[in-house]
Amino acid sequence: MAKAPAGQEFPRKVFGWAATDKSGILAPFHFSRRENGDEDVTVKIQYCGVCHSDLHMIKNDWGVANYPLVPGHEIVGVVTMIGCQVSEFKVGDRVGVGVIVDSCRSCESCHQDLENYCPQAVFTYNSFLLKDMSKTYGGYSDFIVVDQRFVVRFPDGLPPDAGAPLLCAGTTVYSSMKYYGVTEPGKHLGVCGLGGLGHIVVKMGKAFGLKVTVISSSPNKEAEAVERLGADSFLVSSDPAKIKAAFGTMDYIIDTVSAAHSLAPLTALLKVSGKIVILGLPDKPMELPFFPMVMGRKLIGGSNIGGMKETQEMLDFCAKHNITADIELIQMEEINTAMERLSKSDVKYRFVIDVGNSLKSGS
Amino acid sequence: MAKAPAGQEFPRKVFGWAATDKSGILAPFHFSRRENGDEDVTVKIQYCGVCHSDLHMIKNDWGVANYPLVPGHEIVGVVTMIGCQVSEFKVGDRVGVGVIVDSCRSCESCHQDLENYCPQAVFTYNSFLLKDMSKTYGGYSDFIVVDQRFVVRFPDGLPPDAGAPLLCAGTTVYSSMKYYGVTEPGKHLGVCGLGGLGHIVVKMGKAFGLKVTVISSSPNKEAEAVERLGADSFLVSSDPAKIKAAFGTMDYIIDTVSAAHSLAPLTALLKVSGKIVILGLPDKPMELPFFPMVMGRKLIGGSNIGGMKETQEMLDFCAKHNITADIELIQMEEINTAMERLSKSDVKYRFVIDVGNSLKSGS
Repeated sequence: MAKAPAGQEFPRKVFGWAATDKSGILAPFHFSRRENGDEDVTVKIQYCGVCHSDLHMIKNDWGVANYPLVPGHEIVGVVTMIGCQVSEFKVGDRVGVGVIVDSCRSCESCHQDLENYCPQAVFTYNSFLLKDMSKTYGGYSDFIVVDQRFVVRFPDGLPPDAGAPLLCAGTTVYSSMKYYGVTEPGKHLGVCGLGGLGHIVVKMGKAFGLKVTVISSSPNKEAEAVERLGADSFLVSSDPAKIKAAFGTMDYIIDTVSAAHSLAPLTALLKVSGKIVILGLPDKPMELPFFPMVMGRKLIGGSNIGGMKETQEMLDFCAKHNITADIELIQMEEINTAMERLSKSDVKYRFVIDVGNSLKSGS
Repeated sequence: MAKAPAGQEFPRKVFGWAATDKSGILAPFHFSRRENGDEDVTVKIQYCGVCHSDLHMIKNDWGVANYPLVPGHEIVGVVTMIGCQVSEFKVGDRVGVGVIVDSCRSCESCHQDLENYCPQAVFTYNSFLLKDMSKTYGGYSDFIVVDQRFVVRFPDGLPPDAGAPLLCAGTTVYSSMKYYGVTEPGKHLGVCGLGGLGHIVVKMGKAFGLKVTVISSSPNKEAEAVERLGADSFLVSSDPAKIKAAFGTMDYIIDTVSAAHSLAPLTALLKVSGKIVILGLPDKPMELPFFPMVMGRKLIGGSNIGGMKETQEMLDFCAKHNITADIELIQMEEINTAMERLSKSDVKYRFVIDVGNSLKSGS
């Protein structure tokens, strides 16, 4: 295993962009990563998606930012080095790295390939590795060194730029759909919120053979949802008559909205035994609609990212069904403008940084 | 089918006890039921459990009481008459009647043997039959006429008095445990609230081979829970240190508490992928603990009564595992005192009226 010798920091020089305070402004930053250990894979980063949580983290919205902070956990790149114990990857392979880069490997969750629920899961950035407590830095950088367990094969058929957001958004959606059984062809799925997660839900829902209705507060998203993304229908959440007419028609709802909102109308849209899966993390309390839940045997359940095995399965599923994110490809130096636009939800639907072609060391 | 001839009310005279206003005071009451139709079973009532919802209904707590109101939906009795189309029951059989006595029979729920979730389900009392819009009266009465689909065989091995509450409380608990998969031997079940439903959850949990922990606000229920009901352990909800020590240890929690309470500590007691099943209907809003739900893939789900097929399965399960309610058997004329005590939760754990031996017509 690579470990920095005493008195010497990790020797591999890395260049990336970091936020250094809660202004969240990103700027060029030099740091280091560990040597490639026996179980490690070094990945030259080509593309990195810009997740909404990157924005929350650089601005310290959740109070846990540890600056300097290099964001990025939707990483696609090419293997440039492997350790002697690495069997699944070889130099030149295209691979992906997602939200986590380590876990305890011995808890119940790890044994069930649910590293994402390991209490000691190590995030790809702003976290500390278990073996040496070194800080993790994300994919807004030229390369990354990751233990093989947390690297996935990136299928040939999948475009590496538009496929990058699948490493976080894709696995979050896919894992939740598989776990809650939101996969039965012909069933009716409501998708609440049409953003980075929501537009992937529509595409995966259609790939699973579901009837998909987008529920959104923005009437101007209708054409987009139906014509471009392939949803079967569209419901404006601000139209009580239309919402009421759809009561009792949905088998599942995947709720991707991060702003606080009432769950009561969503519960009413469900059939008996219907399920609401929440993927967003609202910043204010929301009320549990227990009466319709009890009377109609309805459930509300959460889900967070996915395990590594499932992430691989998801990428293969997306390659098979031609599912990618709809993206705007940006240059590294455009990141601060992109973050500003992201804060206003002004993106369809995900920014991806062309790291390979635009990250230029200032040193 | 029996139908009252024009100009003539149902001819079969019945005697029971009814509430006539929201004081909820019950008093002797004469009324009528339909003739026994081709598909009907007439049941001479022997025992009737006193459900907490009987108390809510007679006092019009839910605003839907239609007086005069004869409560009772935990009915055990003996068949005294059957219609020509009745094949499953014969005169002299011991049978049970629960919370519902009719449903549409054509909706998705009815086709799935989930008559309890039929939007047109007819309750055993304070409701109206679909075929003739006649009012339903419950089991605090000498006999009842019920369509065979809504009658269940009452197993020989099950005591008819202590078994009566199973028709509502038992099926409510059993159906929820089966649906949410709260049945895997060795798993750890928390039972929140130790009343009419809670004490049945403990018994069924043990019958399914679970490790059962009672979570209660009353420290003085510990001996009762462990020594008498067979729980494996006991947690006082008002002791934060003990609650915290149990965080992350439970696979499921069945929450039977009807008073509003925080779901956050319950969610914290769950392991990853844990489930909270809510059976109570609190009268005030409760907050959804969405953060731990998302982070730990936890769910909260409701459940209400059970279908007829499942009710039969539950009775057979209880007979096999010697599960009955713990009851106080009362005389019909003690019902008002019992309701008073029930309103103070002063009962272990269910009152059952000895209808057969104590209901005496004043006429």
